[in-house]
Amino acid sequence: MKVRVAVLGATGTVGQRFIQMLEGHPWFEVTALTGSERSAGQPYAEVTRWMLDTPIPERLRAMPVLSEDAALDTPLVFSALPGKTARPIEERLAAAGHVVCTNASDLRMDPDVPLLIPEVNPDHLDLIRVQRRRRGWTGAIIANPNCTATGPTMTLRPLLDAFGVTKVLLVSMQALSGAGYPGVPSYDLMENIIPYIGGEEPKVETEPQKMLGTLRDGAVEAAPITISAHCNRVPVLEGHLECLSIAFARRPPLDEVLAALREFRALPQELNLPSAPSQPIIVRDEPDRPQPRRDRDAGRGMSTVVGRVRECPLLDYKLVCLSHNTIRGAAGGSVLNAELMYAQGLLS
Amino acid sequence: MKVRVAVLGATGTVGQRFIQMLEGHPWFEVTALTGSERSAGQPYAEVTRWMLDTPIPERLRAMPVLSEDAALDTPLVFSALPGKTARPIEERLAAAGHVVCTNASDLRMDPDVPLLIPEVNPDHLDLIRVQRRRRGWTGAIIANPNCTATGPTMTLRPLLDAFGVTKVLLVSMQALSGAGYPGVPSYDLMENIIPYIGGEEPKVETEPQKMLGTLRDGAVEAAPITISAHCNRVPVLEGHLECLSIAFARRPPLDEVLAALREFRALPQELNLPSAPSQPIIVRDEPDRPQPRRDRDAGRGMSTVVGRVRECPLLDYKLVCLSHNTIRGAAGGSVLNAELMYAQGLLS
Amino acid sequence: MKVRVAVLGATGTVGQRFIQMLEGHPWFEVTALTGSERSAGQPYAEVTRWMLDTPIPERLRAMPVLSEDAALDTPLVFSALPGKTARPIEERLAAAGHVVCTNASDLRMDPDVPLLIPEVNPDHLDLIRVQRRRRGWTGAIIANPNCTATGPTMTLRPLLDAFGVTKVLLVSMQALSGAGYPGVPSYDLMENIIPYIGGEEPKVETEPQKMLGTLRDGAVEAAPITISAHCNRVPVLEGHLECLSIAFARRPPLDEVLAALREFRALPQELNLPSAPSQPIIVRDEPDRPQPRRDRDAGRGMSTVVGRVRECPLLDYKLVCLSHNTIRGAAGGSVLNAELMYAQGLLS
Amino acid sequence: MKVRVAVLGATGTVGQRFIQMLEGHPWFEVTALTGSERSAGQPYAEVTRWMLDTPIPERLRAMPVLSEDAALDTPLVFSALPGKTARPIEERLAAAGHVVCTNASDLRMDPDVPLLIPEVNPDHLDLIRVQRRRRGWTGAIIANPNCTATGPTMTLRPLLDAFGVTKVLLVSMQALSGAGYPGVPSYDLMENIIPYIGGEEPKVETEPQKMLGTLRDGAVEAAPITISAHCNRVPVLEGHLECLSIAFARRPPLDEVLAALREFRALPQELNLPSAPSQPIIVRDEPDRPQPRRDRDAGRGMSTVVGRVRECPLLDYKLVCLSHNTIRGAAGGSVLNAELMYAQGLLS
Repeated sequence: MKVRVAVLGATGTVGQRFIQMLEGHPWFEVTALTGSERSAGQPYAEVTRWMLDTPIPERLRAMPVLSEDAALDTPLVFSALPGKTARPIEERLAAAGHVVCTNASDLRMDPDVPLLIPEVNPDHLDLIRVQRRRRGWTGAIIANPNCTATGPTMTLRPLLDAFGVTKVLLVSMQALSGAGYPGVPSYDLMENIIPYIGGEEPKVETEPQKMLGTLRDGAVEAAPITISAHCNRVPVLEGHLECLSIAFARRPPLDEVLAALREFRALPQELNLPSAPSQPIIVRDEPDRPQPRRDRDAGRGMSTVVGRVRECPLLDYKLVCLSHNTIRGAAGGSVLNAELMYAQGLLS
Repeated sequence: MKVRVAVLGATGTVGQRFIQMLEGHPWFEVTALTGSERSAGQPYAEVTRWMLDTPIPERLRAMPVLSEDAALDTPLVFSALPGKTARPIEERLAAAGHVVCTNASDLRMDPDVPLLIPEVNPDHLDLIRVQRRRRGWTGAIIANPNCTATGPTMTLRPLLDAFGVTKVLLVSMQALSGAGYPGVPSYDLMENIIPYIGGEEPKVETEPQKMLGTLRDGAVEAAPITISAHCNRVPVLEGHLECLSIAFARRPPLDEVLAALREFRALPQELNLPSAPSQPIIVRDEPDRPQPRRDRDAGRGMSTVVGRVRECPLLDYKLVCLSHNTIRGAAGGSVLNAELMYAQGLLS
Repeated sequence: MKVRVAVLGATGTVGQRFIQMLEGHPWFEVTALTGSERSAGQPYAEVTRWMLDTPIPERLRAMPVLSEDAALDTPLVFSALPGKTARPIEERLAAAGHVVCTNASDLRMDPDVPLLIPEVNPDHLDLIRVQRRRRGWTGAIIANPNCTATGPTMTLRPLLDAFGVTKVLLVSMQALSGAGYPGVPSYDLMENIIPYIGGEEPKVETEPQKMLGTLRDGAVEAAPITISAHCNRVPVLEGHLECLSIAFARRPPLDEVLAALREFRALPQELNLPSAPSQPIIVRDEPDRPQPRRDRDAGRGMSTVVGRVRECPLLDYKLVCLSHNTIRGAAGGSVLNAELMYAQGLLS
Repeated sequence: MKVRVAVLGATGTVGQRFIQMLEGHPWFEVTALTGSERSAGQPYAEVTRWMLDTPIPERLRAMPVLSEDAALDTPLVFSALPGKTARPIEERLAAAGHVVCTNASDLRMDPDVPLLIPEVNPDHLDLIRVQRRRRGWTGAIIANPNCTATGPTMTLRPLLDAFGVTKVLLVSMQALSGAGYPGVPSYDLMENIIPYIGGEEPKVETEPQKMLGTLRDGAVEAAPITISAHCNRVPVLEGHLECLSIAFARRPPLDEVLAALREFRALPQELNLPSAPSQPIIVRDEPDRPQPRRDRDAGRGMSTVVGRVRECPLLDYKLVCLSHNTIRGAAGGSVLNAELMYAQGLLS
């Protein structure tokens, strides 16, 4: 018996990725889809401009789309709702007993909401108890981070554990799929770079601190890492590439940095979660990797690929990391969060 | 009577830019072109795969290409020779009495060679006296910097003067024209980023220190600025976009940073040199500018465009700057160097 | 005293091109701008997302935008209104005595509306008399053709005159600027071709017949040319490239085809109209030209560039032609139409 | 026991595709790789700039590359040799008893060489008997067609059978991978189209006639179809998109054209060959498909995707077809040829 699952905002690009990733899932089964008023009551395939390279699962083509305020009978809910509109809907569902794994930014920084990357801070799931007590919910809300925060946070986890990390300067070159659909006009991005993504930099500068923070007495103490981010949109379809310069508490030799990255394994690998990559971090040795088009699908889009680890004249080390923004950075991250909860008996 | 000019490496992409920029020049006139053994003796138009959007000047189409070791009768020589092959040819010509304005990297860091941006360090031209004395030359060699070092160095000049600059972290997104022709295969760069450009980062980390340094007793004391660079190749035709985080000796308020950038004028503007832009630095207020395709031609490709000046959580301020890599960053930079020398009576 | 001019739909991409092309025009001066209800009453620079590489003319930045139904005091009106909404507005203005040069498709195929390319069918301007009589207007409406019909029609004019043309098969590769702004999402067009443009093929299959037709007794007899069109959207910013196969009434030798194209001059060249290119058709000899990026600006975007003229195994000859879609194919075409009218005393 | 296989030209892009497609093949096993003199004797992984998104098969990484003139001990040979150099090497191997499935163009039009698409002309394999007799070979050479000829020929097969086909006008928009590596410089293809591919049009105009021809008395009578081709290079990675206008001997109604395409199945489907797609032709109903990026992988890159079937004002019908140029149009086509031979007992 699989856990029944609803996807909120199922017609959009992240909603489609949820459906794609959940098709054939060993534990979860999509049994409800929600969409805008305009879509409600219509068969899913008719109101969805499907964008992905695998077809719409046959089983879901005729499923009628529910409105976003429908009551749901699924214990688990994945939310692909856009920022700003997500909070009231997700809170209503959590209050009604659903576990909501959300990709929206609305509740990410709420102190009692776990902002979760299963390899990074699985213990933060304990926040759910605080959340339920404080809000009187029987369900819960668990968030995955911003797609641009994901790769660096994964990369920093083993480095922080081994050497301490104090400062990070980060420049992102972000894929256009991160802007949703229709997203960025061709007229703006063809043969061009846009050195600005509204609202992105503050997220990238704060979310890692929460995820890398310490849970103590029912609250997360943010990790004392100063982060500065420059975010750019580039003409690439999928895969956020980021250049990082990092200062350590204790500057290690290069080979130890490389070893810490290469040997990093965490709870999802131990538990062998269905969507967990065998290697959360893959280190490439070639001088010119990772590249978005060539490396974004590593670990079925769930691995972070790191390269060019070298000394930084200003901080201690610099490197490049790549993370698939609509898989690990969105739908895949949420699904892995749910898998962790399932494996730990939190979905039942 | 215009100064007769030779262009070395005239058939390549930088050589073509020299020819384009010198067409109709009020002071200089191209009277000799050199090329590879294969091209020598052939009419220029027949051995050149012309790439630019203005046509080959009619006057030069039939001009026979000379071999790179030909004797020249032009007082002034612009060199578009590739790195590694430039040094012996340029040294021979300087010894023979020619003033060589070179775009090649070979001699840039030689202590007695001026590495020159006329708005940044016009006084470094005095090194020519040292150079001539030390090497026994009647001519001279003057270099312009790497195209990725150009925009940041221009941007740092007024900031250094006003507030002192101690640290710069810099991430470049570089246009493909910087790789010459045929350069980067489409197969590598389509829908992709390459996070590596061979040999680039060390140049970007050292050339600004020389240019921003102080000439004392016939030698340049490098400016004590620590620079760290990450260099990336992006699918853009022209224009290097760079994200900078900067630490100051004395942290100024934001409006003073902006004023220093906006109000910067220098000797080329004072002398009204033919290729000098009226504003060396243009500050854009829109949140999403500069963009390579939309801003690279500012000041006919000779201005540096700066935007997004804002506080940096890690260093003091961060910003984005853009400089046209094959105009100001190559041929145009060299031509402006020669114009400065002409205006100062150093070409005669 | 210049003719006062209004631009309808001035905030959109074609409206911007009108403003760009009319800046500094020797005969016309923009004195009114219209836009949507949302823009009405606002300064032009504040409600316009300016897209072009030259800045907004200083003089127009603060000009308040009028609503589309405002009364105008300009004898001449350029319309960049979108299809479907243009007809009632343009008809009202023509009835009120304005000469309306429109880029919209709404009235193009009305029998009494001149569909005009000044080099192709300047005599069709006589339709204005029919139009005024029939509709009781004191003004008039003159249309320029679809951007994809423009290049082929220009190319066919001298061939039809010299040899007769009976059949044309045409495949277009159209720039994304033709879709306006925001137009085609990057997500659809990056590393991709879209083999469909809604409503385009019927226009391309009928407009040339009208333009190449014969005016007789106050009506245009369509030229008896069968045209078949395949229209594709490609990742190019500006410039529609089209492959044509052509059957002639009398098959000429290749050199005569080339001569007819090369030697073509027409009334705009004779009258030396300000926007007329010196050569309406430029024939390139290289095997791989014309190319959109390298040739679209020929004749300041007003020339049609033809290349690869060669035998066709199926019809008689095949060739490639290129025309700038937002200059000659839109705003520039309309401006040249108005210049022709001015030169012939029809604007006064 | 699998058939041992050699790949000639194994380090290039088509060679890599052969290796990718043969990895895990149920019938064939790569046991030898050849390359240039420069590569000979080196481990495969060290001399290959691997381009594909799956890794080099572990088993082959250390395999020493043989020189192109080495003696081979594999009954079956796949040739990814470039045109012009392929003939002598392939002929030597065929004479020595090897069956050579070649992607090179050198022998394609030799009258006794089968030019084979297994769905189109499997009976042409009988030419091998003629070939062996005439040339005294114990081996054989079988060619697959040009990548741009492949999609149209597949599309025409059922139409020719059902209605007769007399004329085809074809315009290709070809992916850059067809030019090999390094192939087309970014500087040429970024935001551009190149309306020319050297030597391509004659191949596209003649190879389909041979493949669609009739084998009679040991010779192929070319199908009497007049074909005219315009070939263009577009900024797309993989997948040749082609617009076709087709004249039939007997003009059928549209629904019959669609049915003939949809229902087409052939010998590879009947024999269930490992690389055969379940549908050789997939017809899409959406107005804007097929698109290269979204449809090229249909049938694991082995299906031809057809769309926009509609009336042509000039010939009878027009349509768009898409075929993956480096899978079905190169390595995959050759592998399927070998599978057909194996299934028919011609490899033993």
